[in-house]
Amino acid sequence: MSYINENFMELQDSYLFSTIAKKVAKYTQEHPDKKVIKLGIGDVTRPLATACIEAMHKAVDEMSTQNNFKGYGPEQGYEFLRKAIAKNDYESRGITIEEDEIFVSDGAKCDTGNIVDIFAKENKVAITDPVYPVYLDTNVMSGRSGKYNKQTETYENIEYLPVMAENDFKPELPKQKVDMIYLCFPNNPTGTVLTKEELKKWIDYAKQNNSIILYDSAYEAFITEPNIPHSIYEIEGAKDVAIEFRSYSKTAGFTGIRCAYVVIPKQLKGYTKQGEEVSYNKLWNRRTCTKFNGASYIVQKAAEAIYTKEGQKQIKENIQYYMENAKIIREGLEKAGIKYYGGVNAPYVWLKVPQGMTSWEFFDKLLEEANIVGTPGSGFGPHGEGYFRLTAFGTKESTQEAMERIKKLKI
Amino acid sequence: MSYINENFMELQDSYLFSTIAKKVAKYTQEHPDKKVIKLGIGDVTRPLATACIEAMHKAVDEMSTQNNFKGYGPEQGYEFLRKAIAKNDYESRGITIEEDEIFVSDGAKCDTGNIVDIFAKENKVAITDPVYPVYLDTNVMSGRSGKYNKQTETYENIEYLPVMAENDFKPELPKQKVDMIYLCFPNNPTGTVLTKEELKKWIDYAKQNNSIILYDSAYEAFITEPNIPHSIYEIEGAKDVAIEFRSYSKTAGFTGIRCAYVVIPKQLKGYTKQGEEVSYNKLWNRRTCTKFNGASYIVQKAAEAIYTKEGQKQIKENIQYYMENAKIIREGLEKAGIKYYGGVNAPYVWLKVPQGMTSWEFFDKLLEEANIVGTPGSGFGPHGEGYFRLTAFGTKESTQEAMERIKKLKI
Repeated sequence: MSYINENFMELQDSYLFSTIAKKVAKYTQEHPDKKVIKLGIGDVTRPLATACIEAMHKAVDEMSTQNNFKGYGPEQGYEFLRKAIAKNDYESRGITIEEDEIFVSDGAKCDTGNIVDIFAKENKVAITDPVYPVYLDTNVMSGRSGKYNKQTETYENIEYLPVMAENDFKPELPKQKVDMIYLCFPNNPTGTVLTKEELKKWIDYAKQNNSIILYDSAYEAFITEPNIPHSIYEIEGAKDVAIEFRSYSKTAGFTGIRCAYVVIPKQLKGYTKQGEEVSYNKLWNRRTCTKFNGASYIVQKAAEAIYTKEGQKQIKENIQYYMENAKIIREGLEKAGIKYYGGVNAPYVWLKVPQGMTSWEFFDKLLEEANIVGTPGSGFGPHGEGYFRLTAFGTKESTQEAMERIKKLKI
Repeated sequence: MSYINENFMELQDSYLFSTIAKKVAKYTQEHPDKKVIKLGIGDVTRPLATACIEAMHKAVDEMSTQNNFKGYGPEQGYEFLRKAIAKNDYESRGITIEEDEIFVSDGAKCDTGNIVDIFAKENKVAITDPVYPVYLDTNVMSGRSGKYNKQTETYENIEYLPVMAENDFKPELPKQKVDMIYLCFPNNPTGTVLTKEELKKWIDYAKQNNSIILYDSAYEAFITEPNIPHSIYEIEGAKDVAIEFRSYSKTAGFTGIRCAYVVIPKQLKGYTKQGEEVSYNKLWNRRTCTKFNGASYIVQKAAEAIYTKEGQKQIKENIQYYMENAKIIREGLEKAGIKYYGGVNAPYVWLKVPQGMTSWEFFDKLLEEANIVGTPGSGFGPHGEGYFRLTAFGTKESTQEAMERIKKLKI
């Protein structure tokens, strides 16, 4: 008799985006004349950088000839890409990351999800709240969450670290000892950041408690202010306690191309119950060699092209385009008298819904009265209630139009 | 304190391919004049089908325009590809597979590895021996293997099903009850197959015991004989008990492109400890949505092109090329008086090493006396001892040359 992994039974179905889709479909059907503007999804819309397009055409052509055809590549990624990463994303910031500390993958969702494989089930996990749901759900699946409490909308064994206006979106250190800490800055969904000094507290906590920080810096390319770390390894001692996830999805518009990477310093150690030290880099390497066959050669060539002079120029133009949208959103909210956060170092603006309304009530109001689709904050966790996410990934024209409508909204 | 997944400590390091590489490097250095022919690796070498090349160029161009740019696709794969799979790989053989029973991925190694996520740790696992190491290692990592016994080279909780000349490479039904059964036919590494009647026995066993068959048919495109099933679903009742893994890696030379798929019929059920029935399709869908973001759009377009008339013609030419090599190997071994198996419905030929020699001794002899590299059977598991694998993925010229050398070998 084959038994299922019963941890899956503890997963809570997320109806967030399907509920949004249904509400929008219903509204559109009933009001076919209205032009609905979607600022809800966290997906890019600008065409790929020309440098990436050219690199992929070249790579495709290589695959068509006997001499240049590429079969299986290294599971950890081609040397050409790992070298480019080490040099451009780290060495340029004074950080030494060796090539065999970098693992190229087909996406940060896979990496942040699959990483749970190398950890013991008994580890105590902390996540910020609201949060990117993958951190939570993958720990539910692998048995670290315990039971779900419908009243509090939390799992009994997960430590939730609220991120909200009351604490200036700076999570407080856990009250109890935790072993694995997920941090994502610039943050999804709030768009807020931590300074180096604030991040240092977390490094110190992790060192004191022999904890591991799982640091998702998927949005680092959107940082515009100084003293905001792009990599956790900018902070001294981080290589002893942190794994870093990076993605080309938002940085270079690769959501449909699929490429990311994870950095696991060789000095990063976990423990057996007997107290024996084990290298997480070695464990992840074994996991990667056993369950993965490398990202597509063509995709890795596209990623390499990002690091050329032209590639850098082109992806930065796209990011500036999105950040211009973020500015339009911020200025629009300002004028509308709506309190907001984020949008300076991230493509997300996190607004406070008007007093007395829930996130979903505001969703309905915005859809019906301004024909704008956003994402209710409560969909990202209990501490997201009372907030609402707008994204900068639309076109400039539709973003401007949306803000004109919001300004006219009666709140 | 962060603890590691200690199941990883039970993994046995495989030195198979690194040992081969070292031995070959040493020999080449000492004999720079010798032309070494490599028939060891299971990787394709022929250029991609023109239809796939053209489809990828087109898809890359789409990514360069605002209107045709593609961001996140469906986690389960684009409808265009799932439709093509259902129609061409199943409907054409009289099998009804619905689109939402198909999950497109970036490789069968990932799929056969990740599938363990949806099963309870307590399930008893059976694998054939010799075997593709991924089935075994991923179950070790997820805690289903128990301890390794160095003497017998087996794990205490794994049921090994020998596949060898003595049983005509037809595994016997397990002596004890097992819950998960990995079957790969055409088989890697032996190149042997099961008929429909033989496979029916496994369906019956699985039905009687409520077991799940994890059927890897990555090599189905190499089948040349009738009555050899390309899909396990050709056998009645299989949809109640089997998950099928398919890959474009060998079928269409996609080892560097990365695309595969898994079929999980909706009627396929697992159980909670309380006896509640749960759909594996739903569990895998949840796993896919949580830990995966879909295969690259460009890659899925390449996969779709395989199913066009030109695509089919082109990939079949490549397969015929490899199977011609397999024939050259078989005929060469015949003339050399070496007993062999496989190579008729698979790109692998599994030869019996001369009496009194181990697989590794034969490896050394072949390298030193004929300058040919193959793979020692013992590297695939204890029942691979005494066997040796040659692959058909070289060029015709080098395969012919290799067989000329083997014929001259003194055994």
